[in-house]
Amino acid sequence: MTQAPSSPVRRSVRVALGERSYDILIGPGLIAAAGAEIGSRMKGRRVAVITDEHVAPIYLEPFMRSLSASGIEAVSQVLPAGEKTKSFPHLMDVCDGVLGARIERNDAVVALGGGVIGDLTGFAAGIVRRGSRFIQVPTSLLAQVDSSVGGKTGINSRHGKNLIGVFHQPDLVLADTDVLDTLSPREFRAGYAEVAKYGLIDKPEFFAWLERSWRDIFAGGDARIEAIATSCQAKADVVAADERENGLRALLNLGHTFGHALEAATEYDSHRLVHGEGVSIGMVLAHQFSARMNLASPDDARRVEAHLGEVGLPISMAQIPGVLPPVETLMDAIAQDKKVKSGKLTFILTRGIGQSFVADDVPASEVLAFLKDKHPK
Amino acid sequence: MTQAPSSPVRRSVRVALGERSYDILIGPGLIAAAGAEIGSRMKGRRVAVITDEHVAPIYLEPFMRSLSASGIEAVSQVLPAGEKTKSFPHLMDVCDGVLGARIERNDAVVALGGGVIGDLTGFAAGIVRRGSRFIQVPTSLLAQVDSSVGGKTGINSRHGKNLIGVFHQPDLVLADTDVLDTLSPREFRAGYAEVAKYGLIDKPEFFAWLERSWRDIFAGGDARIEAIATSCQAKADVVAADERENGLRALLNLGHTFGHALEAATEYDSHRLVHGEGVSIGMVLAHQFSARMNLASPDDARRVEAHLGEVGLPISMAQIPGVLPPVETLMDAIAQDKKVKSGKLTFILTRGIGQSFVADDVPASEVLAFLKDKHPK
Repeated sequence: MTQAPSSPVRRSVRVALGERSYDILIGPGLIAAAGAEIGSRMKGRRVAVITDEHVAPIYLEPFMRSLSASGIEAVSQVLPAGEKTKSFPHLMDVCDGVLGARIERNDAVVALGGGVIGDLTGFAAGIVRRGSRFIQVPTSLLAQVDSSVGGKTGINSRHGKNLIGVFHQPDLVLADTDVLDTLSPREFRAGYAEVAKYGLIDKPEFFAWLERSWRDIFAGGDARIEAIATSCQAKADVVAADERENGLRALLNLGHTFGHALEAATEYDSHRLVHGEGVSIGMVLAHQFSARMNLASPDDARRVEAHLGEVGLPISMAQIPGVLPPVETLMDAIAQDKKVKSGKLTFILTRGIGQSFVADDVPASEVLAFLKDKHPK
Repeated sequence: MTQAPSSPVRRSVRVALGERSYDILIGPGLIAAAGAEIGSRMKGRRVAVITDEHVAPIYLEPFMRSLSASGIEAVSQVLPAGEKTKSFPHLMDVCDGVLGARIERNDAVVALGGGVIGDLTGFAAGIVRRGSRFIQVPTSLLAQVDSSVGGKTGINSRHGKNLIGVFHQPDLVLADTDVLDTLSPREFRAGYAEVAKYGLIDKPEFFAWLERSWRDIFAGGDARIEAIATSCQAKADVVAADERENGLRALLNLGHTFGHALEAATEYDSHRLVHGEGVSIGMVLAHQFSARMNLASPDDARRVEAHLGEVGLPISMAQIPGVLPPVETLMDAIAQDKKVKSGKLTFILTRGIGQSFVADDVPASEVLAFLKDKHPK
C-alpha cells in the first residue's frame, strides 16, 4: 500500500456545488497518495483521522505514514465497527476527540472507513465549531458509490435510521479502489446494489451494461473503476441539482423506504441484513409494487430480480435469516421513515428500468396489502 | 397572560436571508397570541415545545392553551434549567422527544425559554431529519436581543462553550416583552449588556441614548421595546451580511473572547457569573486593552466602564465572587475559544465608542501581560 500505484488509471468526478464544490478521486493507490493529495489542497497542517476496528489494522498505519510524509500532523481515533456506532455516545466521543486535538478551521477531520464511519465522522465534522473541513476516504464499495458523495451525514435514533444529522459536504473524497480487494464477497455485493440503483433510477443503458459486465466489475480492474466513476457521477449530478433533497434527490431513495424498514425489522443486525441487501430487496419490492399498481411491466420487475439474484444479492424477504416481525411493524417503520409528509406515504416508484419517479401520495392500504402478499409469515 | 395585549405597540424586524428569511415580532402579549401567529404561518399542525423548569410553571400552560385554541397539537418537554443543560445527553433527549412526537417536515420545534433552551432546541431542530422547522419564543432579555437572532445554535463541550452546533435559522421569533417583567434584576441587567454591545460595535448614538435612557428601558414600556427592536435590527443587519461568520459577524463577539474565558474560569457557575456579566467585563477589558494598545482613548474605556457600572453590571474581574484561576488558565481558554486561526489570537478591538473592528493578529504576549495587570490575584 505504500508504493505508488502500479496502474496509472485514475478517474476524477467533480461535485458541482458552488463554493462547496469538491473532487472525488477514484483509482488505485490513493491511500498511499493521500498525504500528497490532501497536502496540496489544504492550508492547515493538522488532521484528526477517525476509523474503526476493522479498517485500522489494515489501512491506518499506511494512511498515517502517507500523511506524515507530506508534513501533515495527524491524530487518530479508532471506534468499534458496525451500525451501532452511529449513536450519540460515539458522536460525542468523536467531537471531544477532534476538539481535544485542537483541529482548527483550516485543518480537517478525516473519515477512513465505510459508511458508518463516514456518516458519523461527517456529522461530527459538520457540528464541531459549527462546521469543520472534512475529507472522506471510503473503504467499502457502498461508501465509495453512495455515502461519500452528497454530504448527507447522520446517526441513528431509536426511532429509526439516519434520523439525526446534517448536510455537510466533504472537501475531498479519495476512493482507493485497491481497498475493495479486501472486502468480503458479501460486502462487495451489498455495495453493488447501490451501483445497480443508479441504472434503475434513470440510466437503462448503464443497467444493461451491468447485466453484461458484472463479472468484470466483481473481478476488479477498469470495469470496476468505470462502474464506480459512473455511479459517483450519477449521484453528483443529482446532488448538484438538489442538494437539500427537496425534490429530485429523493430518487436516490429508490429501494430505501422498504430497505430501511427491513433493516429496522432485523434490528440492524448485520448477520441478518446489511444496508445494501435491504436496498436490493427494496428495489425488487419497488419494481413489483409498481407493476402491481399498473405503472410498469412485470417483466421489468423480473429483470431486476434476475440480475440482482444472479450477482448473489437477496431479492425477497423470505431470504432474510430469522423471523421477521409482522407486516404492521414494517408499516410502522415505513411511516416513521423520514420521507413522510403530513401522513401521506412517499415512495420511489418506476415506469420501467431506468424510469423511476417520486410518488408522494401512495395509499398506505395498498402498501399494506402488497406487503401482506410478500411477507414470508 | 391569556388576554389580548392591552397595549397595541408591536414592532417587527425582518431578518433578510433569502429563502431562509424570517420575522421577529416584538411586543406585549405575544405568548397569548402565539397560536394565532404560528398557526397563520405554518402548514403543519403539530409542534414540540421545549422549555425548562423555571419557565414551565409560569408560561407553559398559557402557551399551550394559545396553541390549542388555534388548532395546533402540541407536546412539551421540560428540561432542567441552567447552562449545564447544553450538553449531549440533553440534546439526545430532545431529539428523541421530537422524533417520538412524530414532528414532520411541515411541523415545528419550539423553544420556549432563555438562551440555553434556544441554543439547545435550535441545535436539535437543526439535526432532527437533517433540519426541522424551528420557532423561538425567548423569555429572557438576553435571548430576545441576542441568541434568538441569527441562527447560531449549540451545546458546550468540556473543551469550551458553544464548540458544537450548527447554523439553523428559525422560521419565526416571538419576543413577548411582558415576560421580561418576571426576570430578576440581575438577569435583566445581564441581557442589557448585549443591548449596550450593539451601541459599542457601531452605533455611538444608540450607546449615547442608552446612557440617557437606561432607567426607562429597565422600567419597561416603549423605551424597552425600542431598545429590543434596535438590538434585533442591529444583529439582523450583521447576520444578513455575513450569515456564516466569515467576517463582519465576528464583531458580534465584542467582549465575548474575554467573557467566555471568564465563564469557563468560573465553571459556568451562574451564582458567580452569567453570560451577560462575562460579556460586560469582557467589553470593558476589550476597551481597556484597545486603549493600552494605543488604538482608542482611555476616556472611551472609562465611559463604557461608567455606564455598565451605573446599571449595576460587573466591570472588573475583581467583582467576580470566589477565587479566579491563574492568568495562564484564562489564556488557555482564550486559545481554545473558537475564534482562533492557526494559533493567532483574534479579538474584537475598538478605536472608540461604536468603532469596533476585527483584529486577527493580536500577540498572545500582549494579552497575557494585560491580563496579569487586571487579574485580582
